Amino acid sequence: MPDSDLQGRGEEGEKQVTGAKVIAQALKEQDVLYMFGVVGIPVTEIAMAAQELGIRYIGMRNEQAACYAASAVGYLTGRPGVCLVVSGPGLIHALGGMANANMNCWYKACCLPPPISMADTSAVCQAVSVIRSARQPLLIIGKGAAYARAEENIRKLVEQCKLPFLPTPMGKGVVPDNHPNCVAAARSRALQFADVIVLFGARLNWILHFGLPPRYQPDVKFIQVDICAEELGNNVKPAVTLLGDINAVTRQLLEQLNKTMWQYPPDSTWWGTLREKMTSNEAASKELASQKSVPMNYYTVFYNVQEQLPKDCFVVSEGANTMDIGRTVLHNCLPRHRLDAGTFGTMGVGLGFAIAAALVAKDRSPGQRVICVEGDSAFGFSGMEVETICRYNLPIVILVVNNNGIYQGFNEDTWKEMLKFRDATVGAPPMCLLPNSHYEQVMTAFGGKGYFVQTPEELQKSLKQALADTTKPSLINIMIEPQSARKAQDFHWLTRSNM
Amino acid sequence: MPDSDLQGRGEEGEKQVTGAKVIAQALKEQDVLYMFGVVGIPVTEIAMAAQELGIRYIGMRNEQAACYAASAVGYLTGRPGVCLVVSGPGLIHALGGMANANMNCWYKACCLPPPISMADTSAVCQAVSVIRSARQPLLIIGKGAAYARAEENIRKLVEQCKLPFLPTPMGKGVVPDNHPNCVAAARSRALQFADVIVLFGARLNWILHFGLPPRYQPDVKFIQVDICAEELGNNVKPAVTLLGDINAVTRQLLEQLNKTMWQYPPDSTWWGTLREKMTSNEAASKELASQKSVPMNYYTVFYNVQEQLPKDCFVVSEGANTMDIGRTVLHNCLPRHRLDAGTFGTMGVGLGFAIAAALVAKDRSPGQRVICVEGDSAFGFSGMEVETICRYNLPIVILVVNNNGIYQGFNEDTWKEMLKFRDATVGAPPMCLLPNSHYEQVMTAFGGKGYFVQTPEELQKSLKQALADTTKPSLINIMIEPQSARKAQDFHWLTRSNM
Amino acid sequence: MPDSDLQGRGEEGEKQVTGAKVIAQALKEQDVLYMFGVVGIPVTEIAMAAQELGIRYIGMRNEQAACYAASAVGYLTGRPGVCLVVSGPGLIHALGGMANANMNCWYKACCLPPPISMADTSAVCQAVSVIRSARQPLLIIGKGAAYARAEENIRKLVEQCKLPFLPTPMGKGVVPDNHPNCVAAARSRALQFADVIVLFGARLNWILHFGLPPRYQPDVKFIQVDICAEELGNNVKPAVTLLGDINAVTRQLLEQLNKTMWQYPPDSTWWGTLREKMTSNEAASKELASQKSVPMNYYTVFYNVQEQLPKDCFVVSEGANTMDIGRTVLHNCLPRHRLDAGTFGTMGVGLGFAIAAALVAKDRSPGQRVICVEGDSAFGFSGMEVETICRYNLPIVILVVNNNGIYQGFNEDTWKEMLKFRDATVGAPPMCLLPNSHYEQVMTAFGGKGYFVQTPEELQKSLKQALADTTKPSLINIMIEPQSARKAQDFHWLTRSNM
Amino acid sequence: MPDSDLQGRGEEGEKQVTGAKVIAQALKEQDVLYMFGVVGIPVTEIAMAAQELGIRYIGMRNEQAACYAASAVGYLTGRPGVCLVVSGPGLIHALGGMANANMNCWYKACCLPPPISMADTSAVCQAVSVIRSARQPLLIIGKGAAYARAEENIRKLVEQCKLPFLPTPMGKGVVPDNHPNCVAAARSRALQFADVIVLFGARLNWILHFGLPPRYQPDVKFIQVDICAEELGNNVKPAVTLLGDINAVTRQLLEQLNKTMWQYPPDSTWWGTLREKMTSNEAASKELASQKSVPMNYYTVFYNVQEQLPKDCFVVSEGANTMDIGRTVLHNCLPRHRLDAGTFGTMGVGLGFAIAAALVAKDRSPGQRVICVEGDSAFGFSGMEVETICRYNLPIVILVVNNNGIYQGFNEDTWKEMLKFRDATVGAPPMCLLPNSHYEQVMTAFGGKGYFVQTPEELQKSLKQALADTTKPSLINIMIEPQSARKAQDFHWLTRSNM
Repeated sequence: MPDSDLQGRGEEGEKQVTGAKVIAQALKEQDVLYMFGVVGIPVTEIAMAAQELGIRYIGMRNEQAACYAASAVGYLTGRPGVCLVVSGPGLIHALGGMANANMNCWYKACCLPPPISMADTSAVCQAVSVIRSARQPLLIIGKGAAYARAEENIRKLVEQCKLPFLPTPMGKGVVPDNHPNCVAAARSRALQFADVIVLFGARLNWILHFGLPPRYQPDVKFIQVDICAEELGNNVKPAVTLLGDINAVTRQLLEQLNKTMWQYPPDSTWWGTLREKMTSNEAASKELASQKSVPMNYYTVFYNVQEQLPKDCFVVSEGANTMDIGRTVLHNCLPRHRLDAGTFGTMGVGLGFAIAAALVAKDRSPGQRVICVEGDSAFGFSGMEVETICRYNLPIVILVVNNNGIYQGFNEDTWKEMLKFRDATVGAPPMCLLPNSHYEQVMTAFGGKGYFVQTPEELQKSLKQALADTTKPSLINIMIEPQSARKAQDFHWLTRSNM
Repeated sequence: MPDSDLQGRGEEGEKQVTGAKVIAQALKEQDVLYMFGVVGIPVTEIAMAAQELGIRYIGMRNEQAACYAASAVGYLTGRPGVCLVVSGPGLIHALGGMANANMNCWYKACCLPPPISMADTSAVCQAVSVIRSARQPLLIIGKGAAYARAEENIRKLVEQCKLPFLPTPMGKGVVPDNHPNCVAAARSRALQFADVIVLFGARLNWILHFGLPPRYQPDVKFIQVDICAEELGNNVKPAVTLLGDINAVTRQLLEQLNKTMWQYPPDSTWWGTLREKMTSNEAASKELASQKSVPMNYYTVFYNVQEQLPKDCFVVSEGANTMDIGRTVLHNCLPRHRLDAGTFGTMGVGLGFAIAAALVAKDRSPGQRVICVEGDSAFGFSGMEVETICRYNLPIVILVVNNNGIYQGFNEDTWKEMLKFRDATVGAPPMCLLPNSHYEQVMTAFGGKGYFVQTPEELQKSLKQALADTTKPSLINIMIEPQSARKAQDFHWLTRSNM
Repeated sequence: MPDSDLQGRGEEGEKQVTGAKVIAQALKEQDVLYMFGVVGIPVTEIAMAAQELGIRYIGMRNEQAACYAASAVGYLTGRPGVCLVVSGPGLIHALGGMANANMNCWYKACCLPPPISMADTSAVCQAVSVIRSARQPLLIIGKGAAYARAEENIRKLVEQCKLPFLPTPMGKGVVPDNHPNCVAAARSRALQFADVIVLFGARLNWILHFGLPPRYQPDVKFIQVDICAEELGNNVKPAVTLLGDINAVTRQLLEQLNKTMWQYPPDSTWWGTLREKMTSNEAASKELASQKSVPMNYYTVFYNVQEQLPKDCFVVSEGANTMDIGRTVLHNCLPRHRLDAGTFGTMGVGLGFAIAAALVAKDRSPGQRVICVEGDSAFGFSGMEVETICRYNLPIVILVVNNNGIYQGFNEDTWKEMLKFRDATVGAPPMCLLPNSHYEQVMTAFGGKGYFVQTPEELQKSLKQALADTTKPSLINIMIEPQSARKAQDFHWLTRSNM
Repeated sequence: MPDSDLQGRGEEGEKQVTGAKVIAQALKEQDVLYMFGVVGIPVTEIAMAAQELGIRYIGMRNEQAACYAASAVGYLTGRPGVCLVVSGPGLIHALGGMANANMNCWYKACCLPPPISMADTSAVCQAVSVIRSARQPLLIIGKGAAYARAEENIRKLVEQCKLPFLPTPMGKGVVPDNHPNCVAAARSRALQFADVIVLFGARLNWILHFGLPPRYQPDVKFIQVDICAEELGNNVKPAVTLLGDINAVTRQLLEQLNKTMWQYPPDSTWWGTLREKMTSNEAASKELASQKSVPMNYYTVFYNVQEQLPKDCFVVSEGANTMDIGRTVLHNCLPRHRLDAGTFGTMGVGLGFAIAAALVAKDRSPGQRVICVEGDSAFGFSGMEVETICRYNLPIVILVVNNNGIYQGFNEDTWKEMLKFRDATVGAPPMCLLPNSHYEQVMTAFGGKGYFVQTPEELQKSLKQALADTTKPSLINIMIEPQSARKAQDFHWLTRSNM
């Protein structure tokens, strides 16, 4: 123990400890593994005390990003993440992270291993009866299922009963995206025509169109499985509600269904309809992806990335089209391996989340990679955290999908043409960013690897190099068509979008 | 008017306008000149509508920086600055700016030209009587004096009465720093021995050591001149309080003093004491500044910068030692031409403030420059706004005074030595940043000029180039001794410091 | 000093004092005269400690009333009033008083004698020029003028310049209501046709119809005199604003006007119009007041009360019609001698205010009376405070103007008829209260005098007795016609009413 | 439908309804049965619209009491209670009720019949194992058990397993207080020596001494049964936590225990110890109760009341000693039939709660009575609601246990003696109220029956009359010894008390 911890001795000779040490010990007793923050007077000593006790302290560049990282590490490890800030402006900068964690239901109030509750037996029987009577059933697997670590039981349910399923953005990977029963490629169709939908820890918020027509049948029956009573009955009146630990309740459902070995017929019209739609949607996407024109479009980029994506990697993502289209093409095979802008649609979370995931990966399974897929505008919110990544030498691969703007931008010629006649401060369109920004140099400035790519071949090659190098972070700045749009949709995908 | 503004016509043929246009018009009527923000659904249209009406829209990279910029433009122009954000996370990211503006008393509630109030005539007489009886008088000129545009009358008061004065950080320039009556170089001595102190819009907060011994005489008489009644009598019991518009009250004082043509004797012992201390302090600083060792120390850097500093430039600054030492060496000759981390000690304000100042300069006096003096940690809070600076082609000169850390860091050899034995995530000291970070490449990534400098000569040369080029922004990354400290102080300069 | 204050002695023999005593001493140093509250663990000791130091502690029956009393005593004495409550529910019960005080601008933040500020000299000249050019001028005297103790100067202004004036509810008495220049009896007419209106500490809120047509001329010029910059320009764009202490600014106006001895011609058409309207309105009121039918109407009640009202009494009032009509008939001759439901229209303030006024009267001018004019619904909010009044033997005269309901009620026969067919819990109209409630017995229950009156003669007699007895409180329960309405109005008197 | 509901017709002839009607209908759809409030502009119409739809509107005298009534009716009926207030002061007055309901965990967020969750099967087994191994077991039955309507299963558990139990204040009646297994009369002993305690919906807050020594064994094992995960593990680390619906979990425990027909031996030393203590405590109470001196003491009063208390009555209570001692003597035989000042110790709740209970009784089982046991100070908080009780003719029996003060008071002679020398405003002790206040006249003022009683005989007789009359409310003002104290305690009963 260093001298600085011995600040005095009382008459009876008892040892006095610093407040910093007391705080650090209390955190240690709560099994805190990671602390993110920006030091300053008088919290620097807390960071030091935490380090002495074996807690990892990660110094970030802005409390905003620190707080996003802390909340993600809580989600990934099931233990509280800690954010260390100075009072006043430090605390205010951190509010974004706290609000974001709250909207995503990541506040861990209870630091005991949380007790497990089960659903009422009669409600389970009723739910099973509704499922068995379904003609066009659908399971929706949400972030809550991931958080409850229900993957084993949900996968059994999907496979034994042969039911189609759809993951929500952060529910991806609870059952692998490439599972044959995953109908994500026919998402709109599945939602629109299902007659019974079982929600596993998924909320009927804007991401699921509030559960309302025309995106759903007016008489669709919802079965809600959730740990949170307040979520039950939001927006729609469910047919059955199963309140309890999602993993435990899924086991209850499985046990009840297993009594009769019921399964949904694989040769049903419903499966036929879904398969047909999946096939045609996938064909349309691949058609777009195969286009050879330069600048590239989104599908070309993501299909090329998906080809090289390690099966066990973490995918972190934020942006508007980048996040939305990327989610449909990039597969997750493991639960709790996707982190994105979430329910609140918060921009600026990506690098903090990626740092959290990289730390967890480093400790749990060295060699496991983190891919951070960023829109160019989204990257700007916390881009300076690249220095943090380099300082701690976290081999994150950042992809900036760069369309020179928010939603859309201009190419360099159009931009220059426009500025011939007026100053940028007077007339630059609000959604435009500087064309051909070399974001990869933000990485090279701190010793990481940077790539500026304009063609599929350059993308393939640079990604290969980046993934091969496990000792360094890298950033691939991928130029796409600034006016690039997504393929036609039956519906506008999102009722409300985020940037 | 574009079609998008015509959303329908009622039976009587009246024209309907969009909500975005209504908001933009209301802002225009309030004489709003600048709007800072990050667009997204559904506020993009407001930015466009504002542009159509001639309001400048500046798209930033994070709402945090946008809000800092908006508050600074309000301070600089006396008209409300506007920050445009999406709801939810956008609003929360902007809270930092709002809190910072509030702590600095920049909230402009009243959008009429504010009415002017004067002090009670008898209180003015009483104040004059106290001033005339002073044996060791001192004027302290605060940010409130700058905001009230009291420079002309305060300068008259200083010169006609031959009184010594001291500016607060953002009070610098109300009377030029190089004025012979400025005793900033003997700051501690002046505070400690003055028997009468007149505060012009300066609060007795931590920056002024709360007005208490041992930094002041126990029986010092304070005369407070302030527009804000709630500030009067905070921390100390003043001898006289003059409530009113600071400019108007200063004129009242002048009129009263002029009746007898009173002036403080220039050959007093007090002036002697102050001059002696100023001479010795300046000699000590110059001694440090003249050291030839590399890496440089703070004084060498700032003396070299001061030599080339345009007299009419804006100085923006944040950091710990960088801001504190820089303030003592870099002169302001004009009022409202210094913006820094302020009362709240907020890090992350620098680039937003610099952008605001550059916009105001561009419109008011083209050719006037903005110098943004950043600590390396401080730069990291909003460093991505460099893209904004390049996009709008604002010829700001950013100086990053780089000691590889917060308060202090390691040089590259020490850093590498340390990491031989343990991973950075385990053992990097909390205040360390990556050694030799090439922050100048964050500028070159977006087409600006970047310089990496290690010697006084390199610094002189690069600053000369940067100032000569009025068409482009530049960033000079100035490497200093990572353990560089300031010269010895009679007192610790700050009761409470910021990062 | 009692033993309970000596809780221990340190080794060096220093005396330790209780926290309660420390709090009491701090309040004493702020010149606190009165403390209102409800004791409980652990605040009883604070009440005792305050008493020992000579602060009056008044134990109330509900924190709600205690807080209303504390805020009123602050307004009346210019020193902070204190409300003592237990934490939790006690604090929450007190919120009403805090909100009410805030809406009425009674928070005294600064405990120094507040510094005085004056208006800008040129603005004063401009205001005088506008006043002199007025063809139909009007002064409006608000609560702010009373609070600033501007009565002497405002009265001089009225009399020297021969201007018509109108008081706001709590501005009544700054110049006596029976002053010949008071045009309250032609209020609507005066507001509607004035071309220049000077506001002395009066806000253009709902009580003054927001300063807008059709209650005002569209081009009326407002001159605002106020201590609060935020009030200037609210709702309308004033012609001139005079920011400063209202008393000091009135003196500035007077000095400027006196230079030319200007006065408004007493034989103007405007004065003729106003006088004519006053005559006809007063005749209509007297006609109503002279009606001999029983139950009485409001005007009969208030004219009878006004005849006996001591000139120097405090009038406290709350209710709907009771307060509104009572205000037009009952005169105030002294400033700060009227307290009512105020800007916020808060019911339940009456008894707390009356207690505060009675305490102040007792100490400042024994023999001065407090008349508390309550609607029956309003009385119910804090009626149990009658026990407090009796306990402290405060000779308040409470008048309950009883129409068996809120706005209006039923007489006993109608009530009984209605309840023949259905239970009260099913069918009693929401605005009805129990007919013929004997509120006077709430007074006799605690030893005060109670009267139940139904005729003008009974009212005259009982009020005479009550005023003659200076040793006891009394309550006169005055039965009026339950459907009693006010006389026809050119306009609905209030844009928004309160209960 | 009255005309006022038809405010216009569109071109297509659709009927428009008022906002008031829309609100009333929405409440009706939520099965709202009762609405409490104070009308005013603009909410009167809502009360009327509610009445038309069959919702009972009860007009109260202060929003504070209205809100307490609304929260109680929610607890009693399981459907939301509604409080109707005007904005501004009305809303603020109602905050007390909202805070009180929150502290007592009465916020019903979910308006579906709430879904039932069960505890994890393995945790149930573990709990049963701990119970079976207990040498000195104790069940504590809380308000949560009452709210969950778990009375049938908890009673089975008590009787089948022969376990001693203790109710919390509002847990009284879940199993009848006169059940042979109730050890309330040996409360301190039971808590202090139990080795296993099962908490059914009871929180370890100040009422249960936070579960800590010396009031408990240091190694006592707690088993917590609760619906609220956040309550688990508060203050102590429980041996087992059972998260779920309390009724369902109790059934799970019963099923598990029934497998082996386990029961706790009735001849154990533990039962012996408890029975012995109960006998001696009851003897001491009876000794106090049998004292013939006048004024009476608390025990004499409550034993006399208990003798006549109808078994099925509601008991409402608030005060300090009145509530604390009354609780130990007055029995509840039915669940959810006791309402008191609760966890938050809120004074002023009694009359609102009694009104709510009387309405529920009237509708559910006419003839069932409500007894409201008030301290004299507590009665003063909302005493004017007596008019409400009379207006709606609710046959509530109010007992005011009157000791002339808060905690304690003076008798009339001492009071008069004291006031010989000084005015009451200067020297009345803060806890004193007016001696011999005739609170019963507050009842007779509105037509109810009032009694002033000083002897046991008068008390018996008046209570008999009051209970015999089912058509009218009554108030019995019971004078007791002003300095009356409770019998000696092994411990101070409450760690923290309320007024």
